[in-house]
Amino acid sequence: MANFKINDKFWTNYQNIVSEVMLPYQYEILSDSLDDEDLEKSHALRNFKIAAGEEKGEFYGMVFQDSDVAKWLEAVAYSLAINPSKELETKADEVIELIGRAQMEDGYINTFYQINSPDKRWQNLQEDHELYCAGHLIEAGVAYFEATGKTKLLETVKRFADYIDSVFGETKREGIPGHPEIELALIRLYNVTDDKKYLNLANYFINQRGKNRRFYIEESEKRGGTTTFGMDPKNTDYSQATNPVREEKNAIGHAVRATYLYTAMAMSAGNSGEEELTQACKCMWDSMIDRQMYITGGIGSSFHGGECFTADYDLPNDTAYNETCASIALIFFAKEMLKITNEAKYADIMERALYNNTLSGMNLAGNRFLYANPLDFDPKLAETVPIQSHIKKERPKWYTCACCPPNLARLIASLDRYTWHETKDILYSDLFIGGIYESEKMKVEIITDYPYYNSVSYKIHNADRISKLALRFPQWSENTALKQNGKEISPTMESGYAVIDIKNGDEIELTPDITPKKVYSNYNINGNLGKCAIMAGPLIYCFEEIDNGENLNALQIDAAATPKSVDFEDGKLSKIKAVKISGKCLKQSDGLYSLAPPSSQPVELTAIPYYAWGNRGKCRMKVWLVER
Amino acid sequence: MANFKINDKFWTNYQNIVSEVMLPYQYEILSDSLDDEDLEKSHALRNFKIAAGEEKGEFYGMVFQDSDVAKWLEAVAYSLAINPSKELETKADEVIELIGRAQMEDGYINTFYQINSPDKRWQNLQEDHELYCAGHLIEAGVAYFEATGKTKLLETVKRFADYIDSVFGETKREGIPGHPEIELALIRLYNVTDDKKYLNLANYFINQRGKNRRFYIEESEKRGGTTTFGMDPKNTDYSQATNPVREEKNAIGHAVRATYLYTAMAMSAGNSGEEELTQACKCMWDSMIDRQMYITGGIGSSFHGGECFTADYDLPNDTAYNETCASIALIFFAKEMLKITNEAKYADIMERALYNNTLSGMNLAGNRFLYANPLDFDPKLAETVPIQSHIKKERPKWYTCACCPPNLARLIASLDRYTWHETKDILYSDLFIGGIYESEKMKVEIITDYPYYNSVSYKIHNADRISKLALRFPQWSENTALKQNGKEISPTMESGYAVIDIKNGDEIELTPDITPKKVYSNYNINGNLGKCAIMAGPLIYCFEEIDNGENLNALQIDAAATPKSVDFEDGKLSKIKAVKISGKCLKQSDGLYSLAPPSSQPVELTAIPYYAWGNRGKCRMKVWLVER
Repeated sequence: MANFKINDKFWTNYQNIVSEVMLPYQYEILSDSLDDEDLEKSHALRNFKIAAGEEKGEFYGMVFQDSDVAKWLEAVAYSLAINPSKELETKADEVIELIGRAQMEDGYINTFYQINSPDKRWQNLQEDHELYCAGHLIEAGVAYFEATGKTKLLETVKRFADYIDSVFGETKREGIPGHPEIELALIRLYNVTDDKKYLNLANYFINQRGKNRRFYIEESEKRGGTTTFGMDPKNTDYSQATNPVREEKNAIGHAVRATYLYTAMAMSAGNSGEEELTQACKCMWDSMIDRQMYITGGIGSSFHGGECFTADYDLPNDTAYNETCASIALIFFAKEMLKITNEAKYADIMERALYNNTLSGMNLAGNRFLYANPLDFDPKLAETVPIQSHIKKERPKWYTCACCPPNLARLIASLDRYTWHETKDILYSDLFIGGIYESEKMKVEIITDYPYYNSVSYKIHNADRISKLALRFPQWSENTALKQNGKEISPTMESGYAVIDIKNGDEIELTPDITPKKVYSNYNINGNLGKCAIMAGPLIYCFEEIDNGENLNALQIDAAATPKSVDFEDGKLSKIKAVKISGKCLKQSDGLYSLAPPSSQPVELTAIPYYAWGNRGKCRMKVWLVER
Repeated sequence: MANFKINDKFWTNYQNIVSEVMLPYQYEILSDSLDDEDLEKSHALRNFKIAAGEEKGEFYGMVFQDSDVAKWLEAVAYSLAINPSKELETKADEVIELIGRAQMEDGYINTFYQINSPDKRWQNLQEDHELYCAGHLIEAGVAYFEATGKTKLLETVKRFADYIDSVFGETKREGIPGHPEIELALIRLYNVTDDKKYLNLANYFINQRGKNRRFYIEESEKRGGTTTFGMDPKNTDYSQATNPVREEKNAIGHAVRATYLYTAMAMSAGNSGEEELTQACKCMWDSMIDRQMYITGGIGSSFHGGECFTADYDLPNDTAYNETCASIALIFFAKEMLKITNEAKYADIMERALYNNTLSGMNLAGNRFLYANPLDFDPKLAETVPIQSHIKKERPKWYTCACCPPNLARLIASLDRYTWHETKDILYSDLFIGGIYESEKMKVEIITDYPYYNSVSYKIHNADRISKLALRFPQWSENTALKQNGKEISPTMESGYAVIDIKNGDEIELTPDITPKKVYSNYNINGNLGKCAIMAGPLIYCFEEIDNGENLNALQIDAAATPKSVDFEDGKLSKIKAVKISGKCLKQSDGLYSLAPPSSQPVELTAIPYYAWGNRGKCRMKVWLVER
């Protein structure tokens, strides 16, 4: 099996934060050990104890509270693989034991139903996330087995999956999960167990979607119309259950639901090689990436209507939802698309989502989190103005619906899985992260200070069984140089990759152009008209009030100006590079409207990477500024 | 009493539409005579018949459905004064008789409560609009008496008001109307009856607001927490009931509620001369006009959160609410502020709201209506995108909540009341509308083709008892000329009015500069950054796709260009002048984001008056375009 040991200035720091800060912090929250009245209560582990009959009490939290524990366990698994920790492993083992004790005789696990209404399982697939929680538990079981070799949780989730398989299927009970997740989890379970029934069940859930548009209505009628969230059983769009997956033309509905589903579709297509399903995945990808994605890699523009896609080009900056989980799911989907297409455009977007909207989901210290990631933030309007009610004034310590923080932890801790992919003949370098990659076919060392420096060096230690290396030429770099053993080469380009023949001992250096650039928006995006943003390498930049004076709205970028990268000297944002560009500061006018055009004076503007915004107190932030 | 007989190309047409189209059409709707499944059912007159015991059936409609009938009656009164119509008058008389028969022994009228729960009166002032409906009925009674001399409805509403006075007051039941309206109505009733008790009751309702912040909580508790609309009894901001009216610093909450209240406050201050209340009115005015008003005179920027004010400078163009009723209420408020201050700035805003956001509330034919008036409209996003759910793809025929259409009718039919005001010594010309003004003190004839031509001529026929005429120099005109008997004069300016000495036979000509201008926004308005709008005289202009090709987002106005007024040759929009200005059309870029700045080609842009938008089928519309 391939292994990539990350050793990278940028990412090793993040991975250490996950191991040393995020996971211990999140354990304290899940176990209700923190005495802090500003903190949303979790109660997630206690739910398991109550379900196991070891404590008395009531279920507390979201109907999918269990999944916080599952995602934490999965993240711990990845963390243990990179930063072994007796303490974390002991805690994880205890949690795994607890889950085992809470599991029912037939294999079922869901503390909400076990505590509240054990006889009402599977009656509200649209709203109640039983299969979603099962999926996360399965992913945790698979990951923990892969990381530690321990089989306890894997066995637990296999029993659960076996039970689910006994319930749902063509000849059994009909089931269309309201929140996709079980599908990709079952395929992961198939990948480690080689048991086809899990793949078949995943494919059943994928293929069943949209076949019976009345499914949620029927289950609602059967249970007498009771509802958990007040969701409309007729609203199948929200759960991507309107059309069969091969017939849908647009990415619609809840963005995380959608992207988890598309990930599973791509995994299934990767397994079967089915062209029609691959095409359906590409269609969903294009719908998101070509028409519904923010420049930061954020997707799902609207909180109102439910964390969802809305319409092509409807990408407002201030009310943007851009759930952190949705960007993470986009990375999952991108990785699967990479594996089935070997096209660099999927890695380009994976990188975009990773370095921008995803990392924006946490503070630099790793103990504050964002759910919604706006591109135009005004603390005076956040939470107050009704259509900005979802925009937090600052990153909170935790959430009632806490899906994003453990999702960040599991992604960052497993980043090695997103950096490379192999085909029979070619090793693909998808992300530029330092470390040592080693598989049965090849050993490569990568040295880089990316994303702030543009040299990416590859040393080939072992290429005995594979002779081609494919290096992504990033789409944002108009001029990427490539040297092999010191000599510039003009490689064969294949779908965005430079594919080169290599041999043991080769030294290859890739240098994309990471000088900062202005970026312009398709004019269909209403909120970006007349504006530009700044990008340097994979990093989208933003302007914060703290660096640019009191009113960001007064600032314009000069049309003739060129952005310049500079070292940034703010202790709170160590290790970043800022961008400077000349601009204008408008003078305040009297009243709301005036016949006189605003006058202005020249200023130098400072932008910092978007992922680092909001780390220096509440202050206004903008990605797009007027260019004139 | 002063009388102004309008004879004006622009407004006589609108007044005739009210008399000949709107009022007959609205009667058919109120009486459910139209067989049209696209039409929201009214049932409003049938509610009265059921309450009168003349029909069987259930109450149908909003809890304030009665007010549609009251506003229609009030509009008919004004219409009869300008365009006598036996047919309309007969219908109105029948409706008045019906209301009389529905009135209960003690004077109470409210069909919702009379039909549904006669024993539960006055238990939910926060939500149930009983006093609001009473107010509209009182206004109708006053207006019908003034227009026709008939006392039937006046007597009915006096009995109702007497009954209300027996219920509420300092030493009686506490009452804070959830939707202000009764206050201004009672002062109007006082003005025709000279009965101080009505003024006192109005002042009680005004002064009681904010005195007991727990009032809605207490009434909710008393009725066991039942709710009509699910309003939070703690949310006093929504109903302007958080602070006593003299202590509030910002216009907050539901915009129509707010502005009806401020109108009553100004009427009360006009009666008492109280300085503190006058200052409070000015404070509310400034809060709206200096910081929360769209360029079209629209107020209340948010549908979400309830047709409300949000925060200073939060004026998004695409999600704008700008309820037609709120602009109409702003005109009411402006008129009262004019009367107590004699400052032209109030007339400037009255004119702005009248010619733009208010008239946008109806189509040119008078049988389709808008509730929300956006400044950036995209039929592909309207109703579909969750934060644009309130933006209609086209003006509908009617509404479930049909407050705006009859409000338009009563405003337009009574426009004579907003055109002039008199003090002891001065006649103020507030709006420029042709016709003959006649009071005990003065007779003046005004000839003008305003707003499309800028000459406003005044012929003084009788100035025996008053010797000063004050002509508003509009704030938007940087250069206003004034001639008296053919000779240019430099008048004394007082608070925006040119005050001139006149005598019988004088001919005065006012010529404001109505050439089209670019208007710039205060940079605090986020959505207008880098953009300009076009204004000519009082008219704000907008760009529609039908005149400017397929994608308005591609268009920019040239920074160096000057707008020009042109005759417009489209049969559907007769009698307007368009504005032409040179600009650029951007070329479409590939994908969502690109490093290359967009290229463009020169185009000539065409703008039409905002009030006329949406009269040629569904098409994109924008008030603000990027200027470069």
